Amino acid sequence: MSAAATPLVAPPAPRGEDALSALMALLRDDLESCNRLIVEKMQSDVALIPQVAAYIVAAGGKRLRPLLTIAAARMCGYRGERHAVLAACIEFIHTATLLHDDVVDESALRRGQASANALFGNKSSVLVGDFLFSRAFQVMVQDGSLEVMRILSAASATIAEGEVLQLMTQNDTTTTEAQYLAVIEGKTAALFAAATEVGAVVANQPPARQAALRDYGMALGVAFQLVDDALDYSADQEALGKTVGDDFREGKITLPVLLAFARGSDEDRTFWRRTLEDRDQSDTDLAHAQALMTRHNALSDTIERARTYGDQALAALASFPDTPERRALADVVAFCIERAR
Amino acid sequence: MSAAATPLVAPPAPRGEDALSALMALLRDDLESCNRLIVEKMQSDVALIPQVAAYIVAAGGKRLRPLLTIAAARMCGYRGERHAVLAACIEFIHTATLLHDDVVDESALRRGQASANALFGNKSSVLVGDFLFSRAFQVMVQDGSLEVMRILSAASATIAEGEVLQLMTQNDTTTTEAQYLAVIEGKTAALFAAATEVGAVVANQPPARQAALRDYGMALGVAFQLVDDALDYSADQEALGKTVGDDFREGKITLPVLLAFARGSDEDRTFWRRTLEDRDQSDTDLAHAQALMTRHNALSDTIERARTYGDQALAALASFPDTPERRALADVVAFCIERAR
Repeated sequence: MSAAATPLVAPPAPRGEDALSALMALLRDDLESCNRLIVEKMQSDVALIPQVAAYIVAAGGKRLRPLLTIAAARMCGYRGERHAVLAACIEFIHTATLLHDDVVDESALRRGQASANALFGNKSSVLVGDFLFSRAFQVMVQDGSLEVMRILSAASATIAEGEVLQLMTQNDTTTTEAQYLAVIEGKTAALFAAATEVGAVVANQPPARQAALRDYGMALGVAFQLVDDALDYSADQEALGKTVGDDFREGKITLPVLLAFARGSDEDRTFWRRTLEDRDQSDTDLAHAQALMTRHNALSDTIERARTYGDQALAALASFPDTPERRALADVVAFCIERAR
Repeated sequence: MSAAATPLVAPPAPRGEDALSALMALLRDDLESCNRLIVEKMQSDVALIPQVAAYIVAAGGKRLRPLLTIAAARMCGYRGERHAVLAACIEFIHTATLLHDDVVDESALRRGQASANALFGNKSSVLVGDFLFSRAFQVMVQDGSLEVMRILSAASATIAEGEVLQLMTQNDTTTTEAQYLAVIEGKTAALFAAATEVGAVVANQPPARQAALRDYGMALGVAFQLVDDALDYSADQEALGKTVGDDFREGKITLPVLLAFARGSDEDRTFWRRTLEDRDQSDTDLAHAQALMTRHNALSDTIERARTYGDQALAALASFPDTPERRALADVVAFCIERAR
């Protein structure tokens, strides 16, 4: 089933940035309220904390995860203000993982700008990440829902597990697709799933609907990361907002690599082992990696896989009434996939 | 008022290791139950996580913070099992901060053994720390007390603030005593205070007793860190279990430094600025720093300050009935201070 075949997306579906813009317009007031809370809750007497936090939150792009919580809650008919508070908590957890990721990856760029660790140092990035994570739980305690805290503490543990698993599979071309999937479910999809599930929880939805929104977020998150991993070999730096070829240089084992490796010749595999396992790379190797991926349809098939997860996400929305918010959540799926074009 | 003058400590008070051993014997079953929970709750399908966690937890010394929670709860007459569960959570938070501290400090040794970051790498230390922190909150959610979560999420945020403040005052000899105190209250005493306060909360104590146990932990934690900062210039490496002179080499501004700086000659201050601000150090500088501290009573006066906080901790116990647990908590104060001898 392709996205176009489902009745959930009215043809012609808005694509890419358009889809996200429409959703942001629909939920503008809630998003502004969430942004105000983000600024308010990151304050600290220790001046460096709001400085680093503001930098990384400002560089943090589209607020996709808070948007998911807010849209999910509104789709479920929620009329209060808690969704914006919890959306801010989710953005804090996301921001904390970004700060720690950049330390772990030794990244110099984050979405085209200097990363916080490059600007403020690794020490500040580790500690401000810890602060934001703690502050997220402080705000959740004020909100008072044990179920929300259960979901978000579990998601946080799963994110760390996914990141450690990624570390263990790095530079290892014997990594399986199942291991790769476990990595991206952990490091990316778990927080998407938690974001949409929390939307259902604040709206007091029955268990089946809570599970449906969790499934939507999980499938969307996997699709999102698959596209991200394809873009690392194909996007131009400005569009992606990070250095193209980062994954290659670090020897990260992503689906494009796994497909090109499995479909390649013995000579190809020697190339992948030298560049990714031994990390013995010359200036022309990235271009050669990209050529091998094109030859073996590794990028297009990764995007195709993302479309399959996108369809699962759309299917999970089927039990909800047809509202502007539901159509917007369907459009988010299109956004996450179409940015690969 | 000296520790010997208070009726809370029966003379002759057990000293140092003896005091802690007596407390550990008194609470042996609870501590064993806490240790079992620590091992059980650190498990993960991602094999590296329990490996790193087990290493750092095993290297983690005396379980002082869990001991405080357990002793406080028992002193308040608590008879259940939740105190051991929450003590394990507190040890997880402590362990997470140790893992992140060692990355921040670039330490090669922790209590005389190779630090986790030296053995497993900075990346694993950051991520396993994140995992333990998340897992602590998962376990707290299972326990179900919003008040406990409020205390421990606030303590975690305060710890991060204290660590960032330490980063900001590092290499700055204009740091004030008030700033130094804010650093050690945050990075060390906040978790001691939370540990004892949580003991009161599980035992359903009235607000005044909860506050008294919080005050006890806060004063004890400040005393503990003051002694630690003195030991960094005086202990032999085996006794301290860390490299002596770490603080000096990193240019950390601790009370011994502040006292020696304030009481020193212009020539002395030039020495402190060169070694701590410019971090321009030669092989003989640590010995000269120690000599200056001896000349100006900087170490003995730091210990004297610790005794004052120790007395505050003892005073906070005054409203509780005289039980073996209360005597044991008084003995912990002696342990924390007497290890400086």
